[in-house]
Amino acid sequence: MPSTVALSLPAKGAPFTLTEIERRPLRDDDVRIDITFCGVCHTDLHFGHDDWGGTFFPLVPGHEITGVVSEVGPSVTTFTVGDRVGVGCMVNSCGKCAPCTSGEEQYCTEGFVKTYSALDHDGEVTLGGYSQSIVVAEPFVLHIPEALDLDSAAPLLCAGVTVYSPLRKWQAGPGKRVGVLGMGGLGHLGVKIAAAMGAEVTLFGRSPDKKDDALGFGAARFVDTGASADLAGLEGYFDLLINTVPARVDVDAYLGLLGLGGTLVNVGAPGDPIASYNVFSLLGARRCIAGSSIGGIRETQDMLDFCAAHHITAEVEKISAAQVSEAWENLSDVRYRYVIDIATLTMA
Amino acid sequence: MPSTVALSLPAKGAPFTLTEIERRPLRDDDVRIDITFCGVCHTDLHFGHDDWGGTFFPLVPGHEITGVVSEVGPSVTTFTVGDRVGVGCMVNSCGKCAPCTSGEEQYCTEGFVKTYSALDHDGEVTLGGYSQSIVVAEPFVLHIPEALDLDSAAPLLCAGVTVYSPLRKWQAGPGKRVGVLGMGGLGHLGVKIAAAMGAEVTLFGRSPDKKDDALGFGAARFVDTGASADLAGLEGYFDLLINTVPARVDVDAYLGLLGLGGTLVNVGAPGDPIASYNVFSLLGARRCIAGSSIGGIRETQDMLDFCAAHHITAEVEKISAAQVSEAWENLSDVRYRYVIDIATLTMA
Repeated sequence: MPSTVALSLPAKGAPFTLTEIERRPLRDDDVRIDITFCGVCHTDLHFGHDDWGGTFFPLVPGHEITGVVSEVGPSVTTFTVGDRVGVGCMVNSCGKCAPCTSGEEQYCTEGFVKTYSALDHDGEVTLGGYSQSIVVAEPFVLHIPEALDLDSAAPLLCAGVTVYSPLRKWQAGPGKRVGVLGMGGLGHLGVKIAAAMGAEVTLFGRSPDKKDDALGFGAARFVDTGASADLAGLEGYFDLLINTVPARVDVDAYLGLLGLGGTLVNVGAPGDPIASYNVFSLLGARRCIAGSSIGGIRETQDMLDFCAAHHITAEVEKISAAQVSEAWENLSDVRYRYVIDIATLTMA
Repeated sequence: MPSTVALSLPAKGAPFTLTEIERRPLRDDDVRIDITFCGVCHTDLHFGHDDWGGTFFPLVPGHEITGVVSEVGPSVTTFTVGDRVGVGCMVNSCGKCAPCTSGEEQYCTEGFVKTYSALDHDGEVTLGGYSQSIVVAEPFVLHIPEALDLDSAAPLLCAGVTVYSPLRKWQAGPGKRVGVLGMGGLGHLGVKIAAAMGAEVTLFGRSPDKKDDALGFGAARFVDTGASADLAGLEGYFDLLINTVPARVDVDAYLGLLGLGGTLVNVGAPGDPIASYNVFSLLGARRCIAGSSIGGIRETQDMLDFCAAHHITAEVEKISAAQVSEAWENLSDVRYRYVIDIATLTMA
């Protein structure tokens, strides 16, 4: 078996170790990728801490992967050696159910195969992008447009498509008023993408020192939700609210900001997933609370092409492999996404 | 001032009393209606018990009103004396906001004027249909088609449109799988209307002795949610669930029955409006929790015409004015709506 070097968590609570892991020999439709960068997503921590149970250890996290194709199987047609590519949260799905056949593999009725900590169809546990290379079947590999740098494009593969998909689904665009709750990895891309789509964007954040950034990313308005959030005057104002906040928010207060038929969409995977609402908050204006999970492969490619056309990438802080543990400790401080420089991940 | 006889609650907790109340002299666009029947809606009780606070006493409930026009103002053009008419939950709205101008007065941004226990724009408190007559402005009066009886049509004005509106909005029809939660006044009409629209209907109820009724109303399936609800095999099955249950339900269990993009719509006004959900229940299949409130005037007329075309009315138990207190005590037992025969409401 070909081996590669990875940053691995041997068990819950154990520190990262540099280890050799095996990647499968290429199948006919496989693409081998030399990884150049991998984003650090909050979900990585949740799996590392086994917050939701069921994490497979040893764990190699990472599902915001960019790199360069180093080898392709004989039936691969859309990639050649040297291509700039990306891999997001999915590496397989059943391919047969209605969501899969309609290009929404993220809603595969059997559950898509996650890029790490999942049992793949061959019975092997998947290992993610905190490693030098990865082997992924062609249908789950994305093209990274030339206009995007591989470092700042990496977070688009998860954070980017997670906000892009609901913005498309709920038709953010000219004349629409979109609110983004929280400005971390997802939120800052939500502002950029929604603004590029032509919507009027408001950022709700608890760090007033992010206001200038929000306006710079394209927001028309920053609402400080710290100490005393002043939502007066915004009742019924919004068509769409994208909630990227990983902690509990006052659902009813935000529902009150939605106009007739407006939708509050939860994105991202919260550590504490239980929320409550008052039915009257929905009844009063035929409002909806929805949830959206990443995006399909085709949609992820659309997002990458859209971002290339609009010169959108994530704001990143590049870190070395040795800094990953520290980065996990300070994940809420980063502006706005840590990206691991995989060149620093060596056994030397 | 013209007076009429009404069944009134003088104060919270006080018994009903027969009293004379005043109805305003006809304005140019007013329609005076001799009431023949008035449905008993669960909301009447909530106001009578002041469950949500703010009830204006003395209270004359009733917003499922049918009757015959006895007098019209000089500018009234669509009604004449002798016309069979209905009045639902609304008797006024601002008429200028976006929802009002688009025919969705129920979402008037200033709040529509309820048929009872509301301050109308003239400063008077509205008094409802538990009375011999009522005066309502023409835009809020509905035509009752000849094919519908006035007694069994009365509940259509609130219960009927409350289920009709979300079934239309979320496109119940051929090929769609619709679940109706609860089979009371709203639920039994939900089954009838959804089936008439061409959807495959499943009724979720905790009274197995309602199974035959459900199938008779057009349901393809009855799921007993009593003792041990067996939802196995229905995961991801439904496009739309209409929740008419006034008590708390297991939101996550029902969300799990929705397929990709499915919606759980709350209708009716619950006594305890707080609900909770797990965000992952939404994320897993881009599901929505929504709320829908009655329907607009134009939509209410559409619903009445639809019901006439499909021979749909409510199943009613007619009661006399003297039986209203007892009916309020047994509201959960009725099959499926009490309707007050207003001919029995006299001072004699």
